[in-house]
Amino acid sequence: MRSVVSTRGGTGPELRERPRPVPAGGEVLVRTLRVGVDGTDREVVAGEHGGPPAGEDHLVLGHEAVGVVADANGTDLAEGTVVAPTVRRPPSGTNEYFERGEPDMAPEGAYVERGIVGAHGFMSEYFVSAPEFLVRLPRDLAEWGFLVEPISITEKALEHAYASRSAFAWEPESALVLGNGSLGLLTLAMLGERVERTYCLGRRDRPDPTIDLVEDLGATYVDSRETPVPEIPDVHEPMDLVYEATGYARHATETVAALAPNGVGALLGVPGDWTFEVDGGALHRELVLHNRALVGSVNSNRDHFEAAVETLAGLPEWVLESLVTDVVGVEDYDRAFRDDDTVIKAALEFDTL
Amino acid sequence: MRSVVSTRGGTGPELRERPRPVPAGGEVLVRTLRVGVDGTDREVVAGEHGGPPAGEDHLVLGHEAVGVVADANGTDLAEGTVVAPTVRRPPSGTNEYFERGEPDMAPEGAYVERGIVGAHGFMSEYFVSAPEFLVRLPRDLAEWGFLVEPISITEKALEHAYASRSAFAWEPESALVLGNGSLGLLTLAMLGERVERTYCLGRRDRPDPTIDLVEDLGATYVDSRETPVPEIPDVHEPMDLVYEATGYARHATETVAALAPNGVGALLGVPGDWTFEVDGGALHRELVLHNRALVGSVNSNRDHFEAAVETLAGLPEWVLESLVTDVVGVEDYDRAFRDDDTVIKAALEFDTL
Repeated sequence: MRSVVSTRGGTGPELRERPRPVPAGGEVLVRTLRVGVDGTDREVVAGEHGGPPAGEDHLVLGHEAVGVVADANGTDLAEGTVVAPTVRRPPSGTNEYFERGEPDMAPEGAYVERGIVGAHGFMSEYFVSAPEFLVRLPRDLAEWGFLVEPISITEKALEHAYASRSAFAWEPESALVLGNGSLGLLTLAMLGERVERTYCLGRRDRPDPTIDLVEDLGATYVDSRETPVPEIPDVHEPMDLVYEATGYARHATETVAALAPNGVGALLGVPGDWTFEVDGGALHRELVLHNRALVGSVNSNRDHFEAAVETLAGLPEWVLESLVTDVVGVEDYDRAFRDDDTVIKAALEFDTL
Repeated sequence: MRSVVSTRGGTGPELRERPRPVPAGGEVLVRTLRVGVDGTDREVVAGEHGGPPAGEDHLVLGHEAVGVVADANGTDLAEGTVVAPTVRRPPSGTNEYFERGEPDMAPEGAYVERGIVGAHGFMSEYFVSAPEFLVRLPRDLAEWGFLVEPISITEKALEHAYASRSAFAWEPESALVLGNGSLGLLTLAMLGERVERTYCLGRRDRPDPTIDLVEDLGATYVDSRETPVPEIPDVHEPMDLVYEATGYARHATETVAALAPNGVGALLGVPGDWTFEVDGGALHRELVLHNRALVGSVNSNRDHFEAAVETLAGLPEWVLESLVTDVVGVEDYDRAFRDDDTVIKAALEFDTL
């Protein structure tokens, strides 16, 4: 079967023929429908993040997948069920984090990530998985099911951000998303359901499809070249919630200055080392005197995937159609990894229902 | 009656004769027993923080008080009841934060603080207050009741820190208090009841009364001159919880490096502006990849005061006796503001039960 892989020392994704996997006892065989591509995939391909399973020369890419059960293999998961797989797996056997359904909170060493680090992903015509790592979707969401994983990332980040504000009455009215990539835009659409006034920060000129989508969602586009993050409260308004999806390290500290009293910043980017000057006194003081919080969030668990299925079902079709700019066949896999201003979200299509 | 005040442009606390206040309708008259002194009082006296009520030339100091109801004035609060007053008041009438019992979450402009900014404090033989701002104490805690306010500060900070970790299973086993001042040491004693292993950071040489108290509490003393905060995980262990009570701006960012995966730092200090270099990339990444959080916390509300009364009742007498190094009469008020290495916590005694 055809798989899209990243090889050790390689410079881009490659198509490789691999044997169709045979499900072990307790596993099902899934026929892959679509697999999304995101920034993490590009980092893996560039050798900046993750890597193949121990002892192997390549990693099957892909961690945002939707498929259909092809062989139930004696499990309860009926053939024909549409499923999205979660990403983390125990490195061997299980451990306390997986046992309590919180692999997203596992520390380094207590997990591998399919398609990212230490375990093959889903960019194959077929993959196998235990049913506990597969979340069911209604059949009419099969086309968009590869968005369940990125949506689940935001479900978790928002859950943690809201939890941090749960010791008092908190009803966010303003929210700012830093970043107009696909995760930022998905989050903007999700926040539109919860928060009165939404904003999205980018650094693009018009005409631009992401700016169009921001505005079609009823949000305000903020050009960071005109309005740096710390100036947003004066130019627009202080933000009850900031969601950082840029990986730009200055945004972590600048977020504090953009917050309203009692606000929270959810951080999701993963920048490399970068030393720069910060007014650490003001940062510290602003956190304290205004009861502000910063919450880092990575990965997501099965509960977040299930919430994401609900969220996906509630997103208007036009949002999904605007967001997913490219669905390409396996033979055009390199096009799915393209990263220019015309692409918002791309997916590889292996098969259809 | 005698009051200890700070005058505009003054250089230290002063004793001043003022008329005994007359309770308005709905207010009680409280006879003051003891009033604690903390770093905020020293900042107010030094003109670095807060100030007198509008149109007045002086501020009656003191926000950590315990007293006894001297005139119930027709309210439900019986004469003889021992009470500790909360600190924040509405600037005029009331507002939503006070109405829902969360004045600690009010933004600037929506509160004054008795003894700190915009309203007279409790360093007087008598003060008046509406009963809603007075929390009852058992009579046997009257001596120590001035500690209810600082304990309430930690009740709130810990409530917010724990809330930020409430979206997953979190059972902190290690906790580090930054700062061996009276608030740090009180917090260390409180954390000893909740967390297996506690640490306290200071920069003092032995012999020292704070180091003795740290060790008598079963905690490990960490000398920041030998072990800077970011090295604590290697030298000791990563911390599930860090409680910052130094106001040293570098500690806000260094806290992130001291945390265990899924850990939280509660920040309480209020530094001035200070620009310095930070590896903002590592800070950002460490927050995200390890699901860490930073939570700023200021002030406290009536619920925190009530929790603090319970906590105070549970603290061993020897801890309180070690902590409160100086109880001085009103005529020796300047001694209560002394700040050297022999003082841990000082209080002014106006009267006894």
